Amino acid sequence: MAITVKKTKHKILDMLLNHSDTHLSGQKICDVLGCSRTAVWKHIKELESEGFKIEAIQKRGYRLLSTPKELSEARILVGLKTKELGQHLIYFDSIGSTQKEAQHLAEDGAPHGTLVITSHQTTGRGRLGRIWSMPKGKGIAMSLILRPELSINRIPQLTLIAAVAVVKAITDVTGIQTDIKWPNDILVKGKKMVGILTEMQTEGTNVKAVIIGMGMNINADKNDFPEEIRSIATSLKTLTGKSHDMSLIVQTILFYFEDLYMRYLDEGFSVIKWMWESHAVSIGKRINARLFNGKVLTGLAKGIDEEGALLLEDDQGSIHKIYSADIEIK
Amino acid sequence: MAITVKKTKHKILDMLLNHSDTHLSGQKICDVLGCSRTAVWKHIKELESEGFKIEAIQKRGYRLLSTPKELSEARILVGLKTKELGQHLIYFDSIGSTQKEAQHLAEDGAPHGTLVITSHQTTGRGRLGRIWSMPKGKGIAMSLILRPELSINRIPQLTLIAAVAVVKAITDVTGIQTDIKWPNDILVKGKKMVGILTEMQTEGTNVKAVIIGMGMNINADKNDFPEEIRSIATSLKTLTGKSHDMSLIVQTILFYFEDLYMRYLDEGFSVIKWMWESHAVSIGKRINARLFNGKVLTGLAKGIDEEGALLLEDDQGSIHKIYSADIEIK
Repeated sequence: MAITVKKTKHKILDMLLNHSDTHLSGQKICDVLGCSRTAVWKHIKELESEGFKIEAIQKRGYRLLSTPKELSEARILVGLKTKELGQHLIYFDSIGSTQKEAQHLAEDGAPHGTLVITSHQTTGRGRLGRIWSMPKGKGIAMSLILRPELSINRIPQLTLIAAVAVVKAITDVTGIQTDIKWPNDILVKGKKMVGILTEMQTEGTNVKAVIIGMGMNINADKNDFPEEIRSIATSLKTLTGKSHDMSLIVQTILFYFEDLYMRYLDEGFSVIKWMWESHAVSIGKRINARLFNGKVLTGLAKGIDEEGALLLEDDQGSIHKIYSADIEIK
Repeated sequence: MAITVKKTKHKILDMLLNHSDTHLSGQKICDVLGCSRTAVWKHIKELESEGFKIEAIQKRGYRLLSTPKELSEARILVGLKTKELGQHLIYFDSIGSTQKEAQHLAEDGAPHGTLVITSHQTTGRGRLGRIWSMPKGKGIAMSLILRPELSINRIPQLTLIAAVAVVKAITDVTGIQTDIKWPNDILVKGKKMVGILTEMQTEGTNVKAVIIGMGMNINADKNDFPEEIRSIATSLKTLTGKSHDMSLIVQTILFYFEDLYMRYLDEGFSVIKWMWESHAVSIGKRINARLFNGKVLTGLAKGIDEEGALLLEDDQGSIHKIYSADIEIK
């Protein structure tokens, strides 16, 4: 585990990224950062061990040739364009569940914007205690701690904001269009690629913390998935045939989420609502909604309301507000 | 820390409590419980070290002379008249915060009714992150984990149920009448004796766990309190001049809480509402309500609504619903 503020290593990477067309001399780096040549050399070696390809030519210096597709703490932090989200980064090479860790950290006072992240989650869980399995090193599990000054009943809207941020980020980085399935799945061609899990800690009627968890299948091959979920799960690599820069995807999600979140606080939910609905796969379709009392409602998905509840019109023309259910598109 | 199911020690105490008018032979205890004479002797010694006074007369056996006023794990468990609450008991000789521990245990799946308890809490907290200080060994800090099938907006009502349970239990055990100050304090003669802190963990729109924390001043003398709070804090001992059986108070609170909770689930909030209002010190009085935006509302406290919000009528006759505030009675 590493609680990170920007370390010398990250500052070096920052310099390399900003000078990738030329070589940077070790001396120049030393002068700017005020550290020794040996320290620079050590940090360069560390970056190489994290998958950064760095050319070192005597008398000319260092040049960054490529960044890793794998998740990298340094790569997430360097160039992160947010004010708060992810700036307090807690990166694990491997962990049971980022969501559980984030719950504990939130309880212990972790600040707004803290991000817990790994590409190797061993006991992840989804909604309703279901298991969320993720091929090692080929996906992202992350949990974001927020401390919003919002009333309890507005918190479910944050799941919808997160979904819009993910959809925008994936299109930005990969060009792939994804769909949102209410309340918390991101689909491509009908298969699940991302799951979002929003949890909350309250005290009386005050919201103390919201933890938004995301599990994302990025660079898994079809055969990496357990056989029983191959027909329903997918990844970006399965779709495109190539690996994608996982750290860049995280940076981009955080960027969009912060932007949408600030607009939401300023302007309310309506601005998010239309964006969400324009990406939602279920809206305007006939669906089955399996409620948790076992009842199944069938009808037309009309949209979502201001609280983020799904509006379903049954065959008698009555509108049902659905707060929690499994949705099947017919 | 001890996660407790009823152990041989508790069974022995049970037998002693049920035969306090006579001596119980070591052999009889062995026969009933199927353990050795040496084991019985060891458990008796352990109970003595916990403050139970036990007479041992050769050839006649053991007799319980008195139980400790101090909090005791065995004393809480033996004779506990609940189905679920407190049956899963997690007792600490000393701990930073029972509420924090309970939060972590709830996240890790602790069952409905789990009680985390201590009489020595070192870093307790009250509402809004305020410090709750407690003289060592002379008060009770406890946190109860519930897993109710209720909607999020009903959870604040559980604070009010807890308050009624505490008021009833204190009267039962000590004869002292206490008052409830909305939302979460129990007062005697205008001074605070008990604070209640209700926190919740949710997932989407589902309640995963509710943690009800209580801090209670029982056997502290006036001088045990830090000087700056002596004018606002009190204890049962300060009022009566004698120590009270802390374990019995816990047992009685759990008993009433379970009873009221089951009635609440069956019959709804109205049955609790009138009990709460009949003990509430602020109802019918003029109050100042300091909201968390700094605004102060002044007016008549009319009662609580079905959600547990305080209803304040201002001088213009408008009714305000107050969900969270500090209340000052004028």
